[in-house]
Amino acid sequence: MRNLKLTIEYDGSRFNGWQRQTKTENTIQSKIENVLSLMTGEKIKIIASGRTDAGVHALNQIANFTTNSSMTSDKIRDYCNQYLPEDIVITEVEEVSERFHARYNAKSKQYLYRIWNTEYPTALYKGYSYYVPKQLDLKAMKKAVNYIIGSHDFSAFTSVKSKKKSYLREIYSIDFKKEGHFFDIMIHGNGFLHNMVRIIVGTLIEVGEGTRKPEDIERVLKGKIRSEAGPTAPAQGLFLFQVHYE
Amino acid sequence: MRNLKLTIEYDGSRFNGWQRQTKTENTIQSKIENVLSLMTGEKIKIIASGRTDAGVHALNQIANFTTNSSMTSDKIRDYCNQYLPEDIVITEVEEVSERFHARYNAKSKQYLYRIWNTEYPTALYKGYSYYVPKQLDLKAMKKAVNYIIGSHDFSAFTSVKSKKKSYLREIYSIDFKKEGHFFDIMIHGNGFLHNMVRIIVGTLIEVGEGTRKPEDIERVLKGKIRSEAGPTAPAQGLFLFQVHYE
Repeated sequence: MRNLKLTIEYDGSRFNGWQRQTKTENTIQSKIENVLSLMTGEKIKIIASGRTDAGVHALNQIANFTTNSSMTSDKIRDYCNQYLPEDIVITEVEEVSERFHARYNAKSKQYLYRIWNTEYPTALYKGYSYYVPKQLDLKAMKKAVNYIIGSHDFSAFTSVKSKKKSYLREIYSIDFKKEGHFFDIMIHGNGFLHNMVRIIVGTLIEVGEGTRKPEDIERVLKGKIRSEAGPTAPAQGLFLFQVHYE
Repeated sequence: MRNLKLTIEYDGSRFNGWQRQTKTENTIQSKIENVLSLMTGEKIKIIASGRTDAGVHALNQIANFTTNSSMTSDKIRDYCNQYLPEDIVITEVEEVSERFHARYNAKSKQYLYRIWNTEYPTALYKGYSYYVPKQLDLKAMKKAVNYIIGSHDFSAFTSVKSKKKSYLREIYSIDFKKEGHFFDIMIHGNGFLHNMVRIIVGTLIEVGEGTRKPEDIERVLKGKIRSEAGPTAPAQGLFLFQVHYE
């Protein structure tokens, strides 16, 4: 059996998220598995680095699957791109060691969140950014970030709770970049809870708009209560940017 | 009467081009005129720097209209953005001299054409670029551009012909920029015939792919026959980038 690693770009707008569901075939995983199964004549199951929610995009989602097919990597990529919907593209297919597991081996992830930050909306990038008309205070946001970076219990920054799980995650960096009217936030961490990036961004936006003090983040983290953090920023601004492996 | 200048950004994907038509209201001009007429209670007619075809985008289309309304420029912009479809945005409203005419006073225009130039397509920018899998030869394209720059009869580079018209246009510059997998072409000229940018781009792509020699452009220009030039590159890669006034 060969173990193949896929690098995948997708526009999440039209899909019900990454993960295969029983009630709909309209997920990115289903679309890819169906094409690969057709191609190989095998029942292919792919393992992703993690799921993404409905409407979330990916520049470099990573997945792997095993197959007996002898097709070359480039042929597999081209076959997939021919039969997949236009908003899902396989950018690379690589043969990897049988031990490679896209989820278990992922060491860290980077997410990009794009804000359109000017007094009028965007016509061209509306599906790929979140419109915030008020000018964000970069200095205050940089200050807030200091409380988030590091290892913390992120209970306050997730929407789904279960007693068994650990909410401890480490955030390595949060960087800001302004480019034209885009205000980009890049978040790098060892792992993310459900909706964690979007709630961090929603909270940082409140700091940037001046309705929350940077120091307040410390209190929210310690309190571990979801409703004390900011709102969940909308899906269309979020991109899975990179998954890092050893 | 006040004369107001509009700066407009639009995603052309969904529309039947800029210009108002009798058989459909689905044009950018109609959408804007309808909102302005509702706002002012007057029958507003707007004059653009020029039309754009179905599927072509604009970053900074310029138009003007006259009105008796006393609303401030910012109020007009915000009203329009509230009632226009999401893929049309007024980015600026400015009061200008009564003599300003968006078409007659336009001195030059810049168009951007975006090519997605790598061996796999793009999921995220498919509506905003043209996919060319073969690596384009920048050196050959730069050589070809030398034959296009300057004043020429561009009969071979337009799809619509009439005996009365002049086909003389001046191209000031054609610049290339590679950014990631984007291969951008910026064309600046004093005016453009119908489909002229897209036919120039279609011809340059043939040069970049190696199926046409750079020197061949000279022969095509002199021959003045449309079929000797390359194909019309698709609309979704084209953006009206800037209109220059004195």
